[in-house]
Amino acid sequence: MIIVHKYGGSSVATTDKIIEIAKYLGEVKDQGHDVIVVVSAMGKRTDALISLAKEITKDPDKRELDRLMSTGEQTTIALLAIALKSLGYDAISLTGVQAGIKTSGFHTKNVIDSVDNNKINDLLKEGKIVIVAGFQGVNSRGDVTTLGRGGSDTSAVALAAALDARCEIYTDVDGIYSIDPRVYKEAKKLPLISYDEMMELAYLGAGVMEPRAVELGKKYGVEIYVGKSLGEKNGTIICAEEKCMEKKLITGISINENTAMVNIENIPTYAKNVYIVFNSAEKNGVNIDMISQNDVTASHGSMAFTCPKTDETALERTITEIKEALPDIKPEINKDVVKISLVGIGMISNIGIASRVFKILAENSISFHQVSTSEISISLIINGEDKEKVAVLLSKEFEI
Amino acid sequence: MIIVHKYGGSSVATTDKIIEIAKYLGEVKDQGHDVIVVVSAMGKRTDALISLAKEITKDPDKRELDRLMSTGEQTTIALLAIALKSLGYDAISLTGVQAGIKTSGFHTKNVIDSVDNNKINDLLKEGKIVIVAGFQGVNSRGDVTTLGRGGSDTSAVALAAALDARCEIYTDVDGIYSIDPRVYKEAKKLPLISYDEMMELAYLGAGVMEPRAVELGKKYGVEIYVGKSLGEKNGTIICAEEKCMEKKLITGISINENTAMVNIENIPTYAKNVYIVFNSAEKNGVNIDMISQNDVTASHGSMAFTCPKTDETALERTITEIKEALPDIKPEINKDVVKISLVGIGMISNIGIASRVFKILAENSISFHQVSTSEISISLIINGEDKEKVAVLLSKEFEI
Repeated sequence: MIIVHKYGGSSVATTDKIIEIAKYLGEVKDQGHDVIVVVSAMGKRTDALISLAKEITKDPDKRELDRLMSTGEQTTIALLAIALKSLGYDAISLTGVQAGIKTSGFHTKNVIDSVDNNKINDLLKEGKIVIVAGFQGVNSRGDVTTLGRGGSDTSAVALAAALDARCEIYTDVDGIYSIDPRVYKEAKKLPLISYDEMMELAYLGAGVMEPRAVELGKKYGVEIYVGKSLGEKNGTIICAEEKCMEKKLITGISINENTAMVNIENIPTYAKNVYIVFNSAEKNGVNIDMISQNDVTASHGSMAFTCPKTDETALERTITEIKEALPDIKPEINKDVVKISLVGIGMISNIGIASRVFKILAENSISFHQVSTSEISISLIINGEDKEKVAVLLSKEFEI
Repeated sequence: MIIVHKYGGSSVATTDKIIEIAKYLGEVKDQGHDVIVVVSAMGKRTDALISLAKEITKDPDKRELDRLMSTGEQTTIALLAIALKSLGYDAISLTGVQAGIKTSGFHTKNVIDSVDNNKINDLLKEGKIVIVAGFQGVNSRGDVTTLGRGGSDTSAVALAAALDARCEIYTDVDGIYSIDPRVYKEAKKLPLISYDEMMELAYLGAGVMEPRAVELGKKYGVEIYVGKSLGEKNGTIICAEEKCMEKKLITGISINENTAMVNIENIPTYAKNVYIVFNSAEKNGVNIDMISQNDVTASHGSMAFTCPKTDETALERTITEIKEALPDIKPEINKDVVKISLVGIGMISNIGIASRVFKILAENSISFHQVSTSEISISLIINGEDKEKVAVLLSKEFEI
């Protein structure tokens, strides 16, 4: 069968690691499979390239930044092809353009529109191992584009979809865990997880897989294996819900530490004031996550929202702008919070999860600042210091 | 008018240097010229990329090596475009493929077949500064190719030819000298030099310009300016013979220190033995330069040839092979020699140059090992220790 492998930056950080991957791919080829490999730039090369551009200007032109970044993956595909050929395997490297990956959107944040599989199919028929540059494609003007951070996952799944192939993502972690093992050391690795649960975990900040890649996998029914070691197959398979044997109530807990909370008190309760706040946030590029609002008096209310801590500069600009428009408000930024989320397909048909969560928190005198729910998740903003305690309590309660 | 600028690796080694070049190009644009820029990889980046490949295998696949090396120039064009745009100029970067540079031949040693000037002409009409990756093109299979060392000069001249433009090559040296100023400090910079003389100097090892670029300039009548500083125009113009006012007998002296000489004594004088020697040299990749041969006895002769010192490994393999085929020969490698060459269009119509050279050497008791002549040059292999002395004697004799 056809297998699309994907190796991230740390897996191809050195020529020794590239040789190791080449040997493994050779073995897979020898087993009779057709092999396609998607690779990222070596180690921290993308960051190094961006730094070069920032030495010139704070705000580099995006078309040219895409060209600059795309060289990182081109270097890796050439080196991996050189390694495979030196081992006696017939291999060929393709850029995103050559692999037929068509994209659209804004430079540095393109989305994949289509993949033309003719060229790759021909090369596979010739017995070649096909190596494709991840993270990149070409737009309708013939310009090189990139897919945003983590875009190589999306490249791999899109290729697997176009070629009716299995997708194997090799990364730093050896699979998907029910909860971050650094926080709760009894965390269990999941053999299977559904697309929907993985997407919730991904969007909620688990950080293992690019959510767009999982979404694409769901859309085209591509099974995605996520694992660490070459050869041993003890990672996690992301697949359709019906294939996930173990239907547990809660599949996983994600902890997102890149969270800041903003409280704004004494806002005159007019709809236009809410608009002022979120319009300013959007204009400045603050990615709003959770929002809550309540009326304190008939004329004034309070409001809170969360956003990534890394949006700090944009957030400060926003606060300054809002204070100019609404001089009476009292805004306050709290960076000492984390978002903890419970995710599970089982929630759809089980009510009462939220009340079990609140009961545990109450029994242990743990306060939370905000709460939000989706069909298959509950997220809470808690104080950073309560992180481990809440993780352990919830893990035990829901047998994660 | 249209001007094609070319900047080599050391001119674009840092982002500061790239910003400096961007400022200068902006000034040229402001003067009303159409500007095309060809750039090389930053500093020693090409060498660094080749080293990465060599970490994997001694003999990397050439197609993939071309891909690998071509990323160096792509990085520079993106950074230069970012710099120009940050200064408020409309600029766009093009790879060799996008610039319409079609090539053929062997990977890593391609030649330019044609340049499609439509895209660049359109971009110039839109008022853009067009930045083109040097050293690269695309072959008929759509693969990235490179043009061999110094290929960016060739890219620049080919673009100038296709666009009926002037070509300005900015490099480490501030022009073409009659003789290397490090060897003879009274060396004079030439304001003009003919294509033919420059080609002889280039092939003979002067190292300033890629000979193929000069040849292309001659073929299409492109005037090539070679200089160092931005703005000041005190370099050398390479142009047609009839434009070179000063018709001196000897235009320049080149000194090539990358020379080794091989003496082979006691070879049975059969044509097939000469073939054995040069066939083995060719197979092992030794670039033979000068050859001399003479019969010592009726049955045995001696032979000498020169080649680049840098072909040492290949040369040693060759010697081993020859000794296996012809066990009685006595080969000897002499690395302590240099090739010194006199070049001048004036030689065509002036006889007696060679005898003046031999007279000076005799008067000063300087011996030489080999001699060869072309229509406009005389080259001598001398001992390395005599280099300065011979350079000064010849410079004075021919008023260089």
